[in-house]
Amino acid sequence: MEYTIEKAKKELMDLQRKLAAYNHAVELIYYDSVTTAPKNTADNRAVTLPILSEEIYKLTTCDQSVSLLEYLDANKDKLNEKEHRMVYLMLKDIKEMRKIPVDEYVAYQELIVNAEDVWHKAKEASDFALFCPILEKIFETNKKFAKYIEPDKDPYDHCLSQFEEGLNKEILDNFFSSIREKLVPLIKKISEVKQVDDSIRSGYYPIDKQEELSYYLMKTIGLDLDRVGLSTTEHPFTISLGSQKDVRITTHYFEDDFVSSMYSVVHEGGHALYDSNSADDLAFTVLDGGTSMSIHESQSRFYENIIGRSKAFCEYIFPKLCELFPDEMKGKTAHDIYLAVNKAEPSLIRTEADELTYSLHVMIRYELEKKVMAGELAVKDLPAEWNKMYKEYLGIDVPDDKHGVLQDSHWSGGAVGYFPSYALGNAYGAQFLSKMSESIDIYDCISKGDFEAINQWNRENIWQYGRLYTPAQILDRVLGEKFSPDYYIDYLTKKVADVYGI
Amino acid sequence: MEYTIEKAKKELMDLQRKLAAYNHAVELIYYDSVTTAPKNTADNRAVTLPILSEEIYKLTTCDQSVSLLEYLDANKDKLNEKEHRMVYLMLKDIKEMRKIPVDEYVAYQELIVNAEDVWHKAKEASDFALFCPILEKIFETNKKFAKYIEPDKDPYDHCLSQFEEGLNKEILDNFFSSIREKLVPLIKKISEVKQVDDSIRSGYYPIDKQEELSYYLMKTIGLDLDRVGLSTTEHPFTISLGSQKDVRITTHYFEDDFVSSMYSVVHEGGHALYDSNSADDLAFTVLDGGTSMSIHESQSRFYENIIGRSKAFCEYIFPKLCELFPDEMKGKTAHDIYLAVNKAEPSLIRTEADELTYSLHVMIRYELEKKVMAGELAVKDLPAEWNKMYKEYLGIDVPDDKHGVLQDSHWSGGAVGYFPSYALGNAYGAQFLSKMSESIDIYDCISKGDFEAINQWNRENIWQYGRLYTPAQILDRVLGEKFSPDYYIDYLTKKVADVYGI
Repeated sequence: MEYTIEKAKKELMDLQRKLAAYNHAVELIYYDSVTTAPKNTADNRAVTLPILSEEIYKLTTCDQSVSLLEYLDANKDKLNEKEHRMVYLMLKDIKEMRKIPVDEYVAYQELIVNAEDVWHKAKEASDFALFCPILEKIFETNKKFAKYIEPDKDPYDHCLSQFEEGLNKEILDNFFSSIREKLVPLIKKISEVKQVDDSIRSGYYPIDKQEELSYYLMKTIGLDLDRVGLSTTEHPFTISLGSQKDVRITTHYFEDDFVSSMYSVVHEGGHALYDSNSADDLAFTVLDGGTSMSIHESQSRFYENIIGRSKAFCEYIFPKLCELFPDEMKGKTAHDIYLAVNKAEPSLIRTEADELTYSLHVMIRYELEKKVMAGELAVKDLPAEWNKMYKEYLGIDVPDDKHGVLQDSHWSGGAVGYFPSYALGNAYGAQFLSKMSESIDIYDCISKGDFEAINQWNRENIWQYGRLYTPAQILDRVLGEKFSPDYYIDYLTKKVADVYGI
Repeated sequence: MEYTIEKAKKELMDLQRKLAAYNHAVELIYYDSVTTAPKNTADNRAVTLPILSEEIYKLTTCDQSVSLLEYLDANKDKLNEKEHRMVYLMLKDIKEMRKIPVDEYVAYQELIVNAEDVWHKAKEASDFALFCPILEKIFETNKKFAKYIEPDKDPYDHCLSQFEEGLNKEILDNFFSSIREKLVPLIKKISEVKQVDDSIRSGYYPIDKQEELSYYLMKTIGLDLDRVGLSTTEHPFTISLGSQKDVRITTHYFEDDFVSSMYSVVHEGGHALYDSNSADDLAFTVLDGGTSMSIHESQSRFYENIIGRSKAFCEYIFPKLCELFPDEMKGKTAHDIYLAVNKAEPSLIRTEADELTYSLHVMIRYELEKKVMAGELAVKDLPAEWNKMYKEYLGIDVPDDKHGVLQDSHWSGGAVGYFPSYALGNAYGAQFLSKMSESIDIYDCISKGDFEAINQWNRENIWQYGRLYTPAQILDRVLGEKFSPDYYIDYLTKKVADVYGI
């Protein structure tokens, strides 16, 4: 096909708008299925989704798209920075997809659909043996695909870099050993002093009042409610429908505990701030949205923990809590809230873990994945090794696989190498905090409910760029120094000292 | 392309599944936009919808589809009745679509997306001038498209037949003149006797209790709640998402009047019964759903009025009303409900009109559309003419455009020729009632809350066929006689006699 550079650039934008349109449809069908759809309508989606997914696959890998991208790649001196990155990311995806034999790719998709079902049943029955054979295949396939795509690279390093460009075991080994070395003694220290009182969490918190709290929190942290919606689902999440211009978050309410939904909203709100603040000209392109899972988690956990669990934030929102829940707040103070939401205690379930112990849950998953991918641990031995590590690092006994190795859905979804993002995100956030503090009195802003300076800093340094820069580039540009877990450890140490007086 | 008949039949089904998938996406994006989407997300849909619409257009009219359908059409002796009708309807659509230049088609889709937004603002501001230029374009485009498709036919006749195969001005002129002749004097007669008391309508009816009533009503009339969902919107409607397997209805609650939402739910419930009861093998084909708007309205208004406003129905649901609204129902009877929901009185808003005056609202819209399409009335003069006719036929003064010409969304959605369906549907429903009464004691069934015999009659005679038969064929098969408005006039005359004792 004959191109001129201008025509090719226009086609590049058209192709991305088309992909955004299909993604909008697929994402909305998923979102509807977990928020609104009547329960017996899966038959309908089972017809629609494979058809739309196949169109996305065809559109991405067809000869016409490939020759367009190759032409642009060959003329990269005529592309601006953004176009250059679009072409790079799209070609990378295509090249990778093309290295996997189509029949193996399709078989893997079918395996995953089946795996999610089997995992659900195995978890319900707390029976790892049921899930083991299919999980073996998932790990096997991940190894095989890694070798197809990057034959010279360690397979687990390949998996890690799929979720975080440039990430590898060396970085994570260093990171987690620092964390382990500092946090394990800290957790032990807490176990020896008086535990804080979190009884304020439980009580009667009507759903409609909690919903009012959700919108109040979304508005407070600076979300544009005309572009970011809220629904309820079993598991909270954030999704962009096609572009930054329509973002939805979800939460889950418990009538006897307002804290759970409150921090879901602030956590997902952090994701939504990132997603909805890409520069306007990135909308409907592959650069729209966040650059990696870790940077995404750095934002969500920044708003949830660094901001949301700060003393200043608890004080700022306390009058609202009193207005919404007058009976339950009677005789309580903002400080009671602050202590309750910062209670640290080893526990079984990652998603319910406190700020201090959270990263150790992630570390355990990382160590296990690493060993399985290296062939040093058999999948069938995962439960025993899991339980051993929970005892060793968190000091607790795992009663069964449901509350142990079967608790997370990630492996059944094929997401090997995903977990470390959660812990890295925490650590990035703490380093961003340190940098941001050089120019902004953060806790003073929070205590006034004035989030614009904080948001503006994140917008200028992180959000506006979408996927234009790699995670490493973002860190370099923002921090002007190398990533270090010290900021995170320092942040946690101070928090624990304040909450526990140690 | 070389076909075998078996291969061609399979491709016919595949093509329809693909179209169903795209329609699922487009319909869900619309549904989401009016139920859940944050209000400032139209920019997002404005990118996605034209792209998906263009794909539908291409899929429908591409050479491959056309040659498939032409091959099947040439071999129609080898098709069964359903396949034959599929090919006929799809070829008809293609032939029509191919006559519209693709750029004009896409521009019209964009115009409509924009028009709905402008109409909302114009209605809010009660400012027709704001909406006028875009409405002019809509009428012009409808005329232009009609001429592209059927150059020898009157453009408005073309529009009418788009919603009801075989409908034209001649039929409607006769129909509306009968209606006018009989109903205008009846309305006058009522104005001379004592008006019924409908004060029971107003009071305090909490939304959550009304929502409970909605689900109770949906279940009562026989909807499968696992496949038919309920949401709230400004204007109630019914939509199938891709197929009969996922249907959604909506309603609008008013805290001071439970009757409005109650009958919206039963009305939309009638549509949903029709949509969700096509034969299984019609799912994901063009025969899935209702055969025309009038037959659809015959079902919705059958459930809303003939069933829902009957004495038997009011008696059956009264205990539930007492349970949900004990204070407001204190000292009242089912007969008070019956009188209140059958109060007849000329009013401004079509969707709130009573059974007796309803068809006159429709007649006014018909006469206006007819004149605009014939070039006998300028769009800018619609408000004055509207107000004049409301005075002439209903005897009331229209205070502003919000309560007049801007009240309905149909024109902003491009649905020119749609309104007459509402009145025809009423009349068909009354004739079905007469026929159904030959084999079923309808009001006895209703008084027992036993809807299965009624639903079974509708399923066997109407619902199961989807679009397999034309409206005229359905009427012929069910009634065994010609359509006549006399049944409808007779039904209304008796109802008025019972309610007003005249």
